[in-house]
Amino acid sequence: MIIIGEKINGTIPRVKKAIEERDEAFIRDLAVKQAEAGADYIDVCAGTAPEVEEETLKWLMEIVQDAVDKPLCIDSPNPKTIEHVLKYAQQPGIINSVSEERNKCEIIYPLIKGTQWQVIGLTCDNRGIPSDVQTRIDIAKILVEKAQKYDISPERIHIDPLVMALATDNQSVQKFVETLVSIKKIFPNVKVTSGLSNVSFGMPLRKVINQAFLTVAIFAGMDSAIMDPCNREMMTTLLAAEAIAGQDRHCRKFSNAYRKGLIGPNKDAAR
Amino acid sequence: MIIIGEKINGTIPRVKKAIEERDEAFIRDLAVKQAEAGADYIDVCAGTAPEVEEETLKWLMEIVQDAVDKPLCIDSPNPKTIEHVLKYAQQPGIINSVSEERNKCEIIYPLIKGTQWQVIGLTCDNRGIPSDVQTRIDIAKILVEKAQKYDISPERIHIDPLVMALATDNQSVQKFVETLVSIKKIFPNVKVTSGLSNVSFGMPLRKVINQAFLTVAIFAGMDSAIMDPCNREMMTTLLAAEAIAGQDRHCRKFSNAYRKGLIGPNKDAAR
Repeated sequence: MIIIGEKINGTIPRVKKAIEERDEAFIRDLAVKQAEAGADYIDVCAGTAPEVEEETLKWLMEIVQDAVDKPLCIDSPNPKTIEHVLKYAQQPGIINSVSEERNKCEIIYPLIKGTQWQVIGLTCDNRGIPSDVQTRIDIAKILVEKAQKYDISPERIHIDPLVMALATDNQSVQKFVETLVSIKKIFPNVKVTSGLSNVSFGMPLRKVINQAFLTVAIFAGMDSAIMDPCNREMMTTLLAAEAIAGQDRHCRKFSNAYRKGLIGPNKDAAR
Repeated sequence: MIIIGEKINGTIPRVKKAIEERDEAFIRDLAVKQAEAGADYIDVCAGTAPEVEEETLKWLMEIVQDAVDKPLCIDSPNPKTIEHVLKYAQQPGIINSVSEERNKCEIIYPLIKGTQWQVIGLTCDNRGIPSDVQTRIDIAKILVEKAQKYDISPERIHIDPLVMALATDNQSVQKFVETLVSIKKIFPNVKVTSGLSNVSFGMPLRKVINQAFLTVAIFAGMDSAIMDPCNREMMTTLLAAEAIAGQDRHCRKFSNAYRKGLIGPNKDAAR
């Protein structure tokens, strides 16, 4: 599983405060902690007003790249913002995201043609997020086929089937898994990704629901996740799910993580 | 999910002691606690030397049936023992188990012909537990087809695909799920069941692996499990998995269990 660390996001109140106060040490610490906990990419999202988004993203990118060697996942709803800040990245990472909304692909794809940049493709369009599986698959096909015109190969694309809250759609995880399986059948090299917390919106014990979703998604073949690698319980679930899914040869990764004290109940933590 | 409470089993040291000391209160308490925690059936297994197995099972059955209204799951490796104690059951339950070992089906099936008794069918034969999926499916077919000769309908049969330890077979859960899906395709009304602890044998943090297995198995369509309903973490996982699998309309069962304090971190427990 490829882990995209989600913690540097200006929509999180504590991070918003750090951005407003230009608290470099706080952002740096979030980058280091996520990298140490196993993040493969560090997501940076300004979450500010549009006027200051570029400047904020540039600031975040500089701090993170100074703090850790991990590639970035540049996160903005505005493809023009991504276009403008991309030059500050020191190595190819992931662009978060394109979709069939407006002309996102037409702005982002030319930028990453001939590079090693990857891209997250959300299965939504100008009508919003489809409630059915087939429309999601149709959008994923458009996103991958458009990319091919720019020589962006399927393995550089992470399709996010946009799992809905169970509280509003009881079948949302089944739809997610169906979409995942269909996309993998059509494009075996395309990656499938997801955030882990939408699914539990409006429910109690959200963590438990998120963990069950992660387990099922990994077993079904999800390749990457936008998540908090510093969440010990979630990382424990992730490694258990990889073992269950037959992705951990001789269960060594799980056993080693246990021996190093990285998973399981945290004996040191105040309870 | 149908829950078969596993705690009254003479192979568990504390239960063995209670059996040896004829500690009726201890057994009664295990029955009541499991029923209160949500067990649909109470498994009774003597786990003693063959000479005293019948007498012990009879004793256990009497205590459990006096304590709770739940039907029994009569558990013995010896079909002759089951034949002898069946008359002490006050209502139809589950027989645990038949397989293609020796003449188990030929002894058990005639006993439950024309009754409402259900039966667990293990996918093993005189050669042992098959390591491949197809042989498991072939054995399941034999077990179900033999049952039909005695008018035992598929919905009365719980096939146990016998999940192996991940530590010895990395693909064991994938094989389990493949077997489950194939059996359901051939016999849509047959139930699939499993114990939850074999899968983690030889690994650290076994509980975490067992929870991940339960989640995946429920999502794949498992109908029943032989488990400890008094294990709060496992029951939390079970209800989360049912919600994730779309089996909990409006997530009401999950939310109600939370409101009643039945799932989630136990705030009262000493930590």
